[in-house]
Parts: sequence; structure tokens; C-alpha cells
Amino acid sequence: MQRLPGVGPKSAQRLALHILKRPEAEVEALAQAIIDAKKQVGLCQVCYHLSSEPVCDICRNINRDNTTICVVADSRDVIALEKTREYKGKYHVLGGVISPMDGIGPEQLTVQALVRRVSQQQPKEVIMAISPSVEGETTTLYIGQLLKPFTKVTRIAFGLPVGGDLEYADEVTLARALEGRRELD
Amino acid sequence: MQRLPGVGPKSAQRLALHILKRPEAEVEALAQAIIDAKKQVGLCQVCYHLSSEPVCDICRNINRDNTTICVVADSRDVIALEKTREYKGKYHVLGGVISPMDGIGPEQLTVQALVRRVSQQQPKEVIMAISPSVEGETTTLYIGQLLKPFTKVTRIAFGLPVGGDLEYADEVTLARALEGRRELD
Repeated sequence: MQRLPGVGPKSAQRLALHILKRPEAEVEALAQAIIDAKKQVGLCQVCYHLSSEPVCDICRNINRDNTTICVVADSRDVIALEKTREYKGKYHVLGGVISPMDGIGPEQLTVQALVRRVSQQQPKEVIMAISPSVEGETTTLYIGQLLKPFTKVTRIAFGLPVGGDLEYADEVTLARALEGRRELD
Repeated sequence: MQRLPGVGPKSAQRLALHILKRPEAEVEALAQAIIDAKKQVGLCQVCYHLSSEPVCDICRNINRDNTTICVVADSRDVIALEKTREYKGKYHVLGGVISPMDGIGPEQLTVQALVRRVSQQQPKEVIMAISPSVEGETTTLYIGQLLKPFTKVTRIAFGLPVGGDLEYADEVTLARALEGRRELD
């Protein structure tokens, strides 16, 4: 139990004792549910988002814009972006970011599949939506170079978070907010 | 002492007892320093930033770009932007944001002085750098409309803070980050 994310020794003990107290049938149901989830949920063959079908709901949805692909590091980012209800295009999940220190290069990610998909599908725009860490920046720029021959490549804006206060923003964020300024409509 | 910002009853008591313990000369020096600061620090006649001179250091600095004016709500924002070392132009401090609920309209702020300054000085660009609250947005759009006849008006970028994670960004920020996306260089 301790190996689960966010579960320390105390929580692990509490979880273990809770399970031991429940009726046997209930515990078996939990174990079965875990096995089933692992068996049934795989990756979408098109976008590599988590999916219980060979092709995920988003990729199969004909009402979504097929001409825009949003590239994210992780399935969690797809869920976060879906919550905004602003984005109507498709996704591509890389499965991580390029991080030579951790031995993760483009080959460990779904970069090749993305390039193939973009060169075949010829979308109008690819939006890079990767968190602005050093590794994230590297990934954005690397993939941007690869995709530019095929399509327009954009990236999400960095700057002040909405509701954030100028005074409390860190210097790098403020500098990016200044640099990324846009003309008022 | 309790009326000072961030000072609760306990801190106030600690401050008061500390002062009572110090030698009389030291206490008088503190009191005098407070009076002097209040007497000497006024507002810059040009930009309304805090200044001990009639015109502040930034406005007098001939090495700074005279063709860009950055409009902020508060002197604290000037200090925050100066820390980035990215901005080399001048400022204009509004003294707050438009907030009809609190009885603050453009007349309570230095809006008129800003319009006069821009119409006379004809800067190449005015950057609106106001925190993205409802009142901040109103202020940005209102002043933007006033200044557009004279110059190009831009605003700082809103989006993911640098080092922030996509997954933890709130929905409105993510939506703004998507909306404000830019083409990769």
C-alpha cells in the first residue's frame, strides 16, 4: 500500500486495517475491480490517451474539430483541459517530457507517432500545451521543430494566472507576462 | 499597532512591549523616522510612483525608454516589475482600480493625468499591467478605450505561471492560456 502515490506509512496501515475489517466478498470485489481496470484500460491507438476502447471517446467524437491537435505530456492534462470546456479539437498524449537526466528521450515518448499522425492528417494547427519546466520547454521546442514542415505550431500562453496578483507573481512569470503582451482588441 | 496591516492582537502586544523595553533615545529615533518618512515621501508628479523627490528616480533616468509607459494599479506593482529587470520603459501608477462597489471611479484614480500625459508625450506603446480581477479587467478595458486614439495599447499575458503545472492550473487560467496561444518561433 505504501507504494501508492501519496500514501505514507500511517495511511498505508489505516488502509490495510480497513481492508482486513471488511467482509471477504467486499474485499474480493475491490481486488477484482483493480484487476479489471488494469486489464480494460489501455491507450487509445490514435492519441495515446487512457481508454477502455481501442480508440478513445474524444478521437471517436465526430463533433470535435479534426483540424486541431493539442499535444500534452500526460492523460491528466487531457482531463484538465477538458474541464475548461474551451477546447473542441483532438489531443495527442506524449506520455511524459524529454528528460535526458532520467533517460527519457523522444524514443520513450509517442513523438514518432505524433509526427506520423500530423504528416498524414495534415491538421491546420498543433497546439503545444506542456507545462513550462526546463524539460517541458525542451520538449515543446523539439517537437515544434519536427512539426513545422507540416503545419502551424502554436503554444499556450504563459503569464499571470487569472485571479493572481501582480505583486505576488514571481519574477520569471512577470517577465514572461510582459514579453507575451498582446494588443488590446 | 493593531491597525497596521498583518499585525494581529498578539503581534501588536509583542511590538508594544518591545518598544517599552528599549532606551528612550532609540524609541524617539523610530518615531522621528516614521514622521520623516511620511513627510518626505510623496508621489512623483509625472508617474505617481512613491518618491522623495518631486519627480521619481525612474522618470528622471535618461537611460530608460521614454516611448513606453507601463500602467499599473499600485506602487507595489512598480517594485515587482522592476525586480524582473526586463522592463526598461516608464510607468504610470493609477493608485487603484476602478471599483464602483467601493465608490472608486476614474476620477479617484490618476486616469485623467495619464490621458493628458499620453496625448502630450505620444509614446509608441502603453502596456496595461493590471491584475486580472473583475475590477482589473474593467480598468484595463476602460483605459484602453481612452488611450487608443493616441497610441498602441497592449496588455500583459495571462496564462500558466512559469513552473506551474497544467494539471494544477484552474480552469479559467487554462482557458486563457489556450486562448492566448502564440505561434512558435
